[in-house]
Amino acid sequence: MNKYAQVFQGTAFTSKSPKEVEILEDYLFCINDKGMIEQVVAPTNNDYSILLNAYEGKENFHRLAEGQYFLPGFIDLHVHAPQWAQSGTALDIPLYDWLNTYTFPIESKFSDLEFAKTVYEEVVNTLLANGTTTALYFATVHKEASFMLAEICANKGQRGLVGKVVMDNPDQNPDFYRDASTKTALEDTEAFILAVKELAKTTKQGVYPVVTPRFIPSCTDDALKGLGELAAKHDTHIQSHCSESDWEHGYVQDRFQKNDAFALNDFGLLGEKSVMAHCNFLDDNDANLFAETGTAVCHCPISNAYFANSVIPIAHLHAKGVEIGLGSDISGGFSPSLFDNARQAVISSRMLEDGVDTTLPASERGVPSSRITINEAFYLATAGGGEGLSLPIGRLAEKYAWDVQIIDTKLATAKLPIFNVEEDLSDVFQKIMYLVRPENIREVWVQGEKVHSRI
Amino acid sequence: MNKYAQVFQGTAFTSKSPKEVEILEDYLFCINDKGMIEQVVAPTNNDYSILLNAYEGKENFHRLAEGQYFLPGFIDLHVHAPQWAQSGTALDIPLYDWLNTYTFPIESKFSDLEFAKTVYEEVVNTLLANGTTTALYFATVHKEASFMLAEICANKGQRGLVGKVVMDNPDQNPDFYRDASTKTALEDTEAFILAVKELAKTTKQGVYPVVTPRFIPSCTDDALKGLGELAAKHDTHIQSHCSESDWEHGYVQDRFQKNDAFALNDFGLLGEKSVMAHCNFLDDNDANLFAETGTAVCHCPISNAYFANSVIPIAHLHAKGVEIGLGSDISGGFSPSLFDNARQAVISSRMLEDGVDTTLPASERGVPSSRITINEAFYLATAGGGEGLSLPIGRLAEKYAWDVQIIDTKLATAKLPIFNVEEDLSDVFQKIMYLVRPENIREVWVQGEKVHSRI
Ligand SMILES: [Zn+2]
Ligand SMILES: [Zn+2]
Repeated sequence: MNKYAQVFQGTAFTSKSPKEVEILEDYLFCINDKGMIEQVVAPTNNDYSILLNAYEGKENFHRLAEGQYFLPGFIDLHVHAPQWAQSGTALDIPLYDWLNTYTFPIESKFSDLEFAKTVYEEVVNTLLANGTTTALYFATVHKEASFMLAEICANKGQRGLVGKVVMDNPDQNPDFYRDASTKTALEDTEAFILAVKELAKTTKQGVYPVVTPRFIPSCTDDALKGLGELAAKHDTHIQSHCSESDWEHGYVQDRFQKNDAFALNDFGLLGEKSVMAHCNFLDDNDANLFAETGTAVCHCPISNAYFANSVIPIAHLHAKGVEIGLGSDISGGFSPSLFDNARQAVISSRMLEDGVDTTLPASERGVPSSRITINEAFYLATAGGGEGLSLPIGRLAEKYAWDVQIIDTKLATAKLPIFNVEEDLSDVFQKIMYLVRPENIREVWVQGEKVHSRI
Repeated sequence: MNKYAQVFQGTAFTSKSPKEVEILEDYLFCINDKGMIEQVVAPTNNDYSILLNAYEGKENFHRLAEGQYFLPGFIDLHVHAPQWAQSGTALDIPLYDWLNTYTFPIESKFSDLEFAKTVYEEVVNTLLANGTTTALYFATVHKEASFMLAEICANKGQRGLVGKVVMDNPDQNPDFYRDASTKTALEDTEAFILAVKELAKTTKQGVYPVVTPRFIPSCTDDALKGLGELAAKHDTHIQSHCSESDWEHGYVQDRFQKNDAFALNDFGLLGEKSVMAHCNFLDDNDANLFAETGTAVCHCPISNAYFANSVIPIAHLHAKGVEIGLGSDISGGFSPSLFDNARQAVISSRMLEDGVDTTLPASERGVPSSRITINEAFYLATAGGGEGLSLPIGRLAEKYAWDVQIIDTKLATAKLPIFNVEEDLSDVFQKIMYLVRPENIREVWVQGEKVHSRI
């Protein structure tokens, strides 16, 4: 019986719904040669012992050791790959100044392909080591370096969705770093789309071109319109920033007398395959438009503390039916780990609920019913990200890709505080989500291939 | 020339003031046989080459490799050692319920010395692996298990300050977990103080007994009074919780018609060697009393998001002259890392400054001038903690203990994003503070002794 390329045995955690985590205790996961999960088999199922007899002891059979667990690989919906070079620095000034003083100068260096290669290889390695199996990347304006990032993802086995950034507005971008013209911005984008689609043909896990207007202030109307048309023509993903900070939100109101969401929609930039970063200042009409068009919000909780002047009401948006995933926003957010971001998502939601200012009475301090649980933060980092991208990823279920992290809770150098032999598995799950370090992530698999290992 | 027990050469970061970090590039640190820093020598100093000639190549000479740096060991001013067993779980309910449903039951298990040994050894190991060289611990009500924690610190080389917790109020504590009576609470505390003082005589780095009323609600007036007297009699440190949440703050107002700070002071519990956890709801009179008495605040930013209903105004309290250190508050806070807590301290301060509720105009959303920088968060974790405890720790300076973490920024499995050979050292410092993982902490030294090593 050699039906499956791989069979894995162990306990897994996967989202059943935004609020519920399903515990698959000692299940079998049968992976086909495309790297897809073809069968998920409970110990109570009749096939279980048949499969076990057929595969146990073979090279393609993998049983987790005691204290090890499967989690779905994380889906990072917002990474500025070039900004890894400045991650952790320069977090002291507002968004507009941050872009011009720190960020545009460093991104402009990616015209140098050697520098680009060094940084891009490290950021992909780092994200894989942090359990991120799929990443939605902003590269830079440079077509060649952006394509190189897609190639590096292809080679390292990460599912990369990569955008050549468009920023052609001479009023809002410095001379040293912008598209030469609207025309070249669109031409370069189309050439980039075609090149990545070609690359994808030989990439098991997939790489995807993404239409990427930096954000409305960066782009002329013609560029925004042209990008919407290119996305429709080539059926690509779309990403941008949306209603991030007081300044950015106000800028769009001044230019279009409407919120980002409606302005983006006018240009054909909202849809099932659109992911918009931040979105802190969405009002209910904006949220409804997101829900109707299938546009996903990418929540970047660490970054928001520095640049978004607020906490996005995730619980409220979820209740309105908006798709939401999680993003590191390197380097607006310093951490390459979605574990860190999931933790911060919970913390920030608690701070939104309770408020912050002790001089106010409790009843006036916060926004009731804003908290999310660690289960919901896990959903954002996994299933929510998959829905946002409209790809079959983020769940350990049949017809999903075998994208997993193998977590070791008993690693001598970073032992999780599990003292009962019979510890409740939902407690184990919470301890994993709150306490795992990169070193606890022993293996990472994407589309049925091992892409990172600590062993 | 064998004057020094150890000589270290390398680049170090240490606080010059709450806002400024001093960079000691390629300095020599000369350590005496008591584990104290006797001389700090700049490369421009005449002694530098003389010392180098005398020590280089000897067994007691240590030069950092390229990409490695010294940081002071961290000082965690608030750890509930027994709660490590539940860290990362049960973060979904208010303080009062959390204590009764989860925390008191687990703490009650520490009557079992074998269980206590298992958990206490792991928590001390974990804190050392996270760079914490000094910890101010709450143990449990149990005298024997609390003493065991002090012994474990003594043996593992951590500077432990340990309190047997007092909670004798039958109205506020469950039958299964409290001191049998006020009398036994005080007798046990005194016996514990004497035993730890005896243990300290043979402990190079020091261990210290701490008078530890859990918080006002837990204790009768007689116990609070008796503990103040014991602290004065034996000149011990004192720790408790103070003005943490709306509920706790309100309880003390009802019982004493005053805020925690003044109530604690009435019982002789504020002073130079007092550290009070949380203190979110201190008003300006309370803060002045803290400053006058030399009482330190322990800021626990992760825990506060779950249990304190607010963000403490650190910048405001610092400006009023209050001593402030940092605490993990395991397990109100899930992370044993003061790196994580320093990051959250900055994030929380930004959220206090900007506010959280997007439906409010920016001008009404937050509390202006509340932000602290990563330099200030570093100060809280190091020099601020030393001042809080009135011990010569937390700085890499003459007459301070040699308590350090050696950080490797080039570790293959967790490489920091440093791409320029000539990277500005203040950027390196920020990247360390924001991005270091436990695995980057290669060695930890306390009082001139190596107590943790990854090599
Ligand atoms: Zn961004
Ligand atoms: Zn506490």
